[in-house]
Amino acid sequence: MPMATLAAPCSSRHSLLHHHHCRLISPPASARLVRRGRCVRSYASSTREREAAVARMPRLAHRDVMLALAREAETRLGARLLPSEVPANVREFSEDEGRALGSVDVRRGAPGSSIDFFLEAWFHRTLPSGGAIDITALIVFLNGATDAPHFVMDLIQAGPSSLIILLDLLPRRDLPLHPGYIDAYYAATGADAHRRDVVERVPQARPYVSPSLLVRSLWSPTAVVVDVQCGEGGVARLEEIVRGQLASSAEAVLDVWLERCAGSVVEMKAEERERLVARDKMIIATDVEVNLTANLPKMFSADVSDRVVAEISKVFVGP
Amino acid sequence: MPMATLAAPCSSRHSLLHHHHCRLISPPASARLVRRGRCVRSYASSTREREAAVARMPRLAHRDVMLALAREAETRLGARLLPSEVPANVREFSEDEGRALGSVDVRRGAPGSSIDFFLEAWFHRTLPSGGAIDITALIVFLNGATDAPHFVMDLIQAGPSSLIILLDLLPRRDLPLHPGYIDAYYAATGADAHRRDVVERVPQARPYVSPSLLVRSLWSPTAVVVDVQCGEGGVARLEEIVRGQLASSAEAVLDVWLERCAGSVVEMKAEERERLVARDKMIIATDVEVNLTANLPKMFSADVSDRVVAEISKVFVGP
Repeated sequence: MPMATLAAPCSSRHSLLHHHHCRLISPPASARLVRRGRCVRSYASSTREREAAVARMPRLAHRDVMLALAREAETRLGARLLPSEVPANVREFSEDEGRALGSVDVRRGAPGSSIDFFLEAWFHRTLPSGGAIDITALIVFLNGATDAPHFVMDLIQAGPSSLIILLDLLPRRDLPLHPGYIDAYYAATGADAHRRDVVERVPQARPYVSPSLLVRSLWSPTAVVVDVQCGEGGVARLEEIVRGQLASSAEAVLDVWLERCAGSVVEMKAEERERLVARDKMIIATDVEVNLTANLPKMFSADVSDRVVAEISKVFVGP
Repeated sequence: MPMATLAAPCSSRHSLLHHHHCRLISPPASARLVRRGRCVRSYASSTREREAAVARMPRLAHRDVMLALAREAETRLGARLLPSEVPANVREFSEDEGRALGSVDVRRGAPGSSIDFFLEAWFHRTLPSGGAIDITALIVFLNGATDAPHFVMDLIQAGPSSLIILLDLLPRRDLPLHPGYIDAYYAATGADAHRRDVVERVPQARPYVSPSLLVRSLWSPTAVVVDVQCGEGGVARLEEIVRGQLASSAEAVLDVWLERCAGSVVEMKAEERERLVARDKMIIATDVEVNLTANLPKMFSADVSDRVVAEISKVFVGP
């Protein structure tokens, strides 16, 4: 099926109707309905759709790592995540005869949970030179029920042998003022060991210094913020690093987050909670703006990038 | 003159008397009085004493750089700094037949200025192996009249060919929440160019990762936080880096600070100012604790290190 057909304009007029239908009908019919409009799908059908979409994408080790982590997190978060409400033409889009492909999916946290949203996204653009750029993100933000860190993994691959890795439990407090926060979420969780593993076991990893001073200010003291450069002919070596050290370290960080952060509830005064949530909105705007939305217009037509950016921007506004 | 005589116990009983005498009498007599107790000295006599003390220290390139910067800053800050009130046996102390030497001096900011305090310190300890450890700091903190960054330079040399450099305009705001602060003090001042100069022009410079997660959280996005390792026989190379790139980059950062931060006055609500000053106290406690006071007991006897730590601790309490 040509991917371009998935990028047709989408109406949300039938969403309520589809909501119930999608849970009952078989996946292929569901998939057709979904493509005609916004729809909240069952876990099974959305999983099958996603698997089909992934099968249509060019294989990429770092995307496989993200997808495995995303499925692990979804399984363990279970009913704490609401079904996706992202329209089909944002969940999967393609242009330029498949040379530009992408997918963005967002699941809101269920009422009563500590989850704000769960965002997974990947973008692929084949370059005229024959190379490609691939950007992948898995971001799970918590809400004002807790001050526990968010989970963030951004992977930016501008060539077959180089990869920028940003992997962190993103802090939600002004750290110098909150040493107890550092102790609870970073020192006591062993988070630094996972950073050290990447830095020490991957000799090709160099510190990555973002051109944005604001982005440099977001990270925790245990963040993995590296640029892995394997050089000419390093394609196999990079794939080995991605499927080996990156996969295991990212899984370890996600495990810390799922065990110690995702279910956390912290008592706060209303004013403190408001400040925390306002800070979160600044942070997600910065992370998503710099790592995702700033890159989309370079990879896709204005139509597609506007539509995708608009959908991502809903994350900032909240449910 | 044996340095050990300078480490005699000190009484502050005569400080007021000495305050006036010291401004009138000749330096040698002043120096004798100073050694007997706490004393506020004239700029000329304290400068001469300092020069004499420096002449007695083993030569060290990184200390020379700090001293040159300190004199430059003192000259340009002029009457915004009050005379030192640090007792002579903290301004200069020595033990173990000169194998352990040190100096701590603090000048408070004048009333009406934006300066909180100006601290310079250096410590030297010859090791049984024949090597030495040298720790040097120049720290100028601002008060609640402004939210502009502090100036911090810590230099830690554990061998003749390796040096840890911490050089920063230390931020006083929770940066992700204050992009305008990043723009004003870091982007618009060209601060990042000075960081890049060190990182790019000194191939021996590797990122320094403090064992303290709290210390890692203090720095600005343009901080120089590096470990320069010149390896076996790299003594001359390190000295060249220190007198060349370190001296010029540190001077450039100090110049930004003197021009854009030291004289700044910013309107704030009382509550905001209180939070800022409370944050400052946390930060100075962390920086001084980790980089200075934690190391003193390893270098000096309990008597000396207790006395010096007590004097440094006054900085946290304020005037």
